[in-house]
Parts: sequence; structure tokens; C-alpha cells
Amino acid sequence: MPQRNIRVAVAGLGVVGRETVRLLQERAPRLSRRLGAELTLDAVCDRQVAREARALKLPGCVFKTRDPQALLSRPGLDVIVEVLGGLEDARRLVVGALAGGRHVVTANKLLLSRRWPALQAARRHGARLRFEAAVGGAIPIVQSLGESLCADRVEAVYGILNGTTNYILTRVEEGLTPEAALSEAQALGFAEKDPRLDLSGQDTAQKVSVLAAVLTGAWLDPRRIPCRGIEGLGAEDVAFAREELGRAPRLLGALRLDWSGDPRVEAHVFPTLVPLSHPLAAVRRQRNAVLVRADPAGDLLFEGPGAGAGPTASAVVGDVFLLARELLGAASPESPAAAPAELAPAEDSVSPFYLRLRAMDRPGVLARVAQALGRRGISIASIHQPQSGGRALWAQVVLTTHPAAQGRFDDALADILRIPSISPRHAVLRMLDA
Amino acid sequence: MPQRNIRVAVAGLGVVGRETVRLLQERAPRLSRRLGAELTLDAVCDRQVAREARALKLPGCVFKTRDPQALLSRPGLDVIVEVLGGLEDARRLVVGALAGGRHVVTANKLLLSRRWPALQAARRHGARLRFEAAVGGAIPIVQSLGESLCADRVEAVYGILNGTTNYILTRVEEGLTPEAALSEAQALGFAEKDPRLDLSGQDTAQKVSVLAAVLTGAWLDPRRIPCRGIEGLGAEDVAFAREELGRAPRLLGALRLDWSGDPRVEAHVFPTLVPLSHPLAAVRRQRNAVLVRADPAGDLLFEGPGAGAGPTASAVVGDVFLLARELLGAASPESPAAAPAELAPAEDSVSPFYLRLRAMDRPGVLARVAQALGRRGISIASIHQPQSGGRALWAQVVLTTHPAAQGRFDDALADILRIPSISPRHAVLRMLDA
Repeated sequence: MPQRNIRVAVAGLGVVGRETVRLLQERAPRLSRRLGAELTLDAVCDRQVAREARALKLPGCVFKTRDPQALLSRPGLDVIVEVLGGLEDARRLVVGALAGGRHVVTANKLLLSRRWPALQAARRHGARLRFEAAVGGAIPIVQSLGESLCADRVEAVYGILNGTTNYILTRVEEGLTPEAALSEAQALGFAEKDPRLDLSGQDTAQKVSVLAAVLTGAWLDPRRIPCRGIEGLGAEDVAFAREELGRAPRLLGALRLDWSGDPRVEAHVFPTLVPLSHPLAAVRRQRNAVLVRADPAGDLLFEGPGAGAGPTASAVVGDVFLLARELLGAASPESPAAAPAELAPAEDSVSPFYLRLRAMDRPGVLARVAQALGRRGISIASIHQPQSGGRALWAQVVLTTHPAAQGRFDDALADILRIPSISPRHAVLRMLDA
Repeated sequence: MPQRNIRVAVAGLGVVGRETVRLLQERAPRLSRRLGAELTLDAVCDRQVAREARALKLPGCVFKTRDPQALLSRPGLDVIVEVLGGLEDARRLVVGALAGGRHVVTANKLLLSRRWPALQAARRHGARLRFEAAVGGAIPIVQSLGESLCADRVEAVYGILNGTTNYILTRVEEGLTPEAALSEAQALGFAEKDPRLDLSGQDTAQKVSVLAAVLTGAWLDPRRIPCRGIEGLGAEDVAFAREELGRAPRLLGALRLDWSGDPRVEAHVFPTLVPLSHPLAAVRRQRNAVLVRADPAGDLLFEGPGAGAGPTASAVVGDVFLLARELLGAASPESPAAAPAELAPAEDSVSPFYLRLRAMDRPGVLARVAQALGRRGISIASIHQPQSGGRALWAQVVLTTHPAAQGRFDDALADILRIPSISPRHAVLRMLDA
């Protein structure tokens, strides 16, 4: 049986489109092995397609066009990736593709939130539309809400869905003024020159609309979602909330769903004080997070980088893979293992270590412990004697080391436990070095 | 065209099996609408099948058997759910089903980690095996690593994969002895009477083996994974790590992958000190979490309840849905919207509020503010005057309210801003009430 070939087009060669092309090409062998079918970049489209294709070193067999509509008549194309951005060109391409039976992956939250009814209508002949990248970068929240949790009743979703505002809020927590935090975000390149779409909460409202569509199938016009931004929030609110209320502000996009009859949705975007001990308070800088409350799954939290070319392209190609597998159906053989994985020897595993010892409180004992470590090339990061104040015969000693291989550490520990003034009772912990 | 029917069998009617049956039946209409095909419970199997079927009020048309092998010859069965637990009966059923071309969903980490090569061999004719529920309850980590992130190079995975040990560690952080924390976990029913499999790290090692198989396709015998448990850890280590090192202990199952050649895996289970500011330190009690470091997706964190009948059944039925969709292939029409969702009026949305005002420092102003809230039925939770010490003409006042409807709050705020001694400058925040 000749192997099936899944042909993919990428429309839009901006930063996300270029990273998508790069990933599709570099990772094609692995993806093809997993699918049991070839996955091929068949066409690209961009206003500057000649220049971008050269920069990407695309082979001659890849069809190149400046006109998105030209993709619609391209024979044999299975999946179109829309990363043009904007509203009307993207709508024409995506609606045309779906209506013609082509499957589409898009990262375009504006398109999804503003043109959902047209997209739904265009899908009525069975073409698929996937859009993981439109909300929360590579966080697989669309897949999880729409598929993994499909048997659940999702009761509430609370999302930090905009990296710019979360960056500003957490930098203000760290002492900056809101104005300085915004300038910093702009200088770092993840706040727009005109930041109003972010600061006003409108960007978050679009993402809330997309998540509502995933959960209910129905359209929630983002312009109807009650929405307040962070513009009115002062540094004094952030400081006061922290010190007096034990809370931190986060711009939350919220959905609450009532499943008792036809689904009834409460949606809003609001700066919200969350307890400092709440997992959403631990989401800092430009990171995004989504808390999902579902029955019977319970409370699930997803957290990750909310934007950027890499995370967005990761989500796009993941969607292409899932579409390809659906196209192939149960006919596609699931990959048997590639080469068997090799287990690295445990003794090579490197980590900083924590070691608690009980030592007879005699001169020279610590020096012998340090020697035992030094002989194995392990350097001590800190030494502590937490209970050295008393007159006990045995004293506790805690050492931490710089990163060392497990094997060397185990050897040194064996030597240490042979020192006569050291008790055999001890505790070893790794320390996360990341 | 007659509608396709996907027939499902559930083998094992313990707590997870019963909850799976309940979900499949209660949520069947929604699942069927999403699939464009019927999803039917066709058969159940249990040693006490008559008793359990009565308790579950199963209709007569559901085939009932005490013998798992009887499912293998049942005609027309599409998916078998294995929640028998244990090793040999489960292996016989799952291998037999896969070899016969039946698709399987299992929650059995012991089976997966110990019999992976036999399961892989049985799948060679194309039958699918899904096992989201085997690791981390309803946290969709298997789907994410195996599918959403399929274009990524996953470089490292750090997981809190055992709820019992995490419960003990975080209760010891809160001041209990390890022995008292274990007794408490046993009394609450989420630690086994014989807790050795959990405390020793072996349960975590099995889950690490499953995640390694998802990432590489290859088998890592869990008995070869270097593994230390939390038995040697004392309350003094937990206290010292917190106070002197700013760290908290977590039992981490770790995978590090080197993709430069054939995949090379470093795997271990070790009690590990993580910085208190690290998201894994925020994972408390019996909850599980997985941190994934991937290129180009970045660092992703997944957190949720790691076990329990509800979360496990949620993951099982999610897998059944995904298998059903693969079986139907791209032929299955994706559901158009069910009934359109109704947007609840914004003014009905209930939350506690934070309100910062600037008030002329005159007697009676606060009383008028309180009256304005009281007239709308809003009760004040706290009043603060953060800068009342000075001699400024204007004083800041911060109020927090008990939960109130947005509409009533907005009306009260309009009244408040009409009080002559109140400045129009103010800030409103919601407070998360969860």
C-alpha cells in the first residue's frame, strides 16, 4: 500500500509562520513516523513570499504564492495553516477553505471571536477547524476543554490570558510604577507600542469568547463581554492588597457555566484580587494560566508561556498532527517504538545535594567530611549546624553541595559514613537546579 | 445514512469502573452529539457483576459477564475499558483485545509499566491503546506529551505523581510529624493500609516509566529506575530546608531526555528540595503536578487532583471519546452548536468587591458611604484607612464587601461618587471567591 501523504500549506510568514515552517520541516521525520504517513509542507503564502522563501531555504517543490485565495484551488492540499493575522483576509481564506472541505489550523483569536458564526457555518460539510494556539500559546487548554474533558461539566474557567498585563501587575508587585512596568514590557518586546488592546482587557475578552465557543459551541461576541482593564489600578492598590488583604491582583477572564438547562454562560474580564496562596498568584511576569473547575475531574490548573513564536508554532504543529491523524482515521498504524530508548546510568545523574549528618562534636570531624567530598571533586555550597548551641554529644550538620554526579556523591557519602565520629543516621535530598 | 454506533465495554466495576459507567450513561447524549454517532455501553464485566449491575440499574440490553475473556468474543465491540487493576488478568484482557483489533482504554499503571513490550507487540495490527488515567488523574498529561507536544523536543519532565507522599510532605511542612501525617492520610482514605508502594517511590517510578514510554515509545522497566522514597526524611529536614534554604521537599519523578542521537533517557525518583517560589512548591496536599520543559513550547505546568474515582473516570471517558473520534475518522461530522449559549446578564454576576475611594476627611462621610452600600443590600466586610495618619485634606479609604451582584454594586458606587466629599478618582477590583 503506498504511504499516504498529508499536505500542509502555511499562509502568513511572519514570526509565527516562519517558526511553523521551520518546525514542520525539522521535525517532519518524527511526525511522519508517528503518523505512519508523510507530512509535507506543500505551499506557503505571504505578501513577501519570494524573500521569505529564500530566507527559509524552501525547496523548489513548495508552491509559493502571494495570494491566499490561490491556496483554495491548489489540488491535494489537506490542511491550511492560517497565521496571516487580521480579520478580513483571514476570514476569506478560512471560510473558503472550510467550505471547500479543507481542514484548517489557525492561531487567530480575533478571527475566531469575531467571526465564529461564519466559521461554524462553513464547517457544516465536515471540515475541521483547530485553534490551540489562539489561547495561551502552547498551553493545551483548547484540546483539554474540548476533548479531554468532554465528558465533564466544566463549571468555571478563570484565566490569566494576557501576558502584557500580567507582566505589568507582577512588576508593580515588585515595586515598579505601572508606567515604568509598561515601558519595560515594551522595551522587552512583548507589549505593543499601542497597548490599549491589552490594558483594556479586550484581548482577554477575545480569548474568553474563544473558550466559551469551545465549551458550548455557541458564539459569545467579545464586544458584549463585560470588560474592565487594569488602567485604573494604582501601585497603592497593589501594595495595600498585598499587605492588608494578603492578595495580589490578576486580570482574570472568567467563565461560569450553568448546565442545569441549556448552557447559560456568565462571562467577564475584571482585575481580580486572588489570595497570595492561590496558584494564580504564583503566575508571574508574562506567563499565562487557566484554572478549570470541572465535574468530575476537579480543579485543574494549566500554566505556561502565553505567547511567542516558539510556543505558538508548537501549538499550531500539534494541531496539524491531530488533524492529520483524524484524516488518516483508525487506518493509520500507530508508531511502534522508534529505536529503544537508552537509560542513562544513574551514577551520571547530576544534581546539587542536601546532606544531613549527625556528628560527634569533636574538632576535625567537619574537616574530614569536607575532605571526603573534595576527594570526589564535590564542592560544598553551604554548611549549617542548626542545633550546635546545646551541649549534646551529637550535633546535627547540614551540608549542601554544588551540582555533582550521583555516583560520586554516593561514593563520598559511603566514605563519610565510615568516619568514626559520624552516625549512620543521615538524610539525602536532591535540590532542584532549574 | 444510518448513524454509526460506537460500542463500549467496561471491565471491572470497582469505584473507578462504576463512576465510568455512570459518566458514560449520564453524559451519553452530549458525547453522541459531539461525535455525530451513538456511544453505547454494550457490556460490563466484574466478579460480582449481577450485584453491581443491579446497583447501577443497568438495562437488560447491556451484556453482563464475570469473565473478562468473554468480552474478546463479543461481536461489534469497539472499545474495551480495562479498570480491573492488577497485573495478569488485566494483561490477558488487554493483550487479547489489542491483538484482536479492539481498541483499549486502561487506567492501569502497573500493567503499562511492567508489560509495555507485550502491549506494544499486541498493537502492531493497528489497535489503539489510550491511558490518560494512569498518570495524574484527570490531568491531561499523557495526551499533552504524546500528541499536543508531538512536534516538540521534550527535554525534561518533573512530576509530583503520588498524592499520598505529597500529602505527608506538605502536612509535615505544616507542623505534623511524618507518622501523624501518614495516619491522617490513611484515616482520610487516600493512603493505603500498607503504604510502602507509595512511600518508597515505587508508585512514582511506575508513572515515570509510563511517561517515558509516551515520550520515546520504548520501555523503561520501573524496577530499573533509581528510586528513593521519603522514609528517611525527618521533620527536622523539612523545617531546616524551609527556614535556612528557602526550599520545600517534594517527591519528584524526573525524566531528562537527550535528543541529540537516539533518545537517551535519564530517569529517577528522589525527594527533592524545590525553591519556595517554584510552582511545584505551591502543589499541596494530595494534588499532583507535572512540569514539562519542551522546545519550542517552553515550560508548561499541569496541576490537579492525582487520583480518585471522579478524576480517573473523567480521564477514562475522555480517552473513549478520542478513540471513538479516531474510529469515525474525518467522516464524523463535528457537532455544530447545540442550543446557542445564553449570556447571563452582567449585572447578576456575584463577587466580593474591593473599592478604593478618596474622601474628604470629615465626620460622617464614611457613614454615608456605608448607607449607600446598605441601601443596595451590600454588606461591608472590612474598612481600611491606609493613609489616615497624616494631615492631608483627602484620605484614602479602602472597603471590601461581602459577595454582591455587579449591578447592585455599580448602582451603589454611582450613589457613592455623588457624595460631595468623595473624589471621582477610585478603583474597583473583584476578589476571587473560591
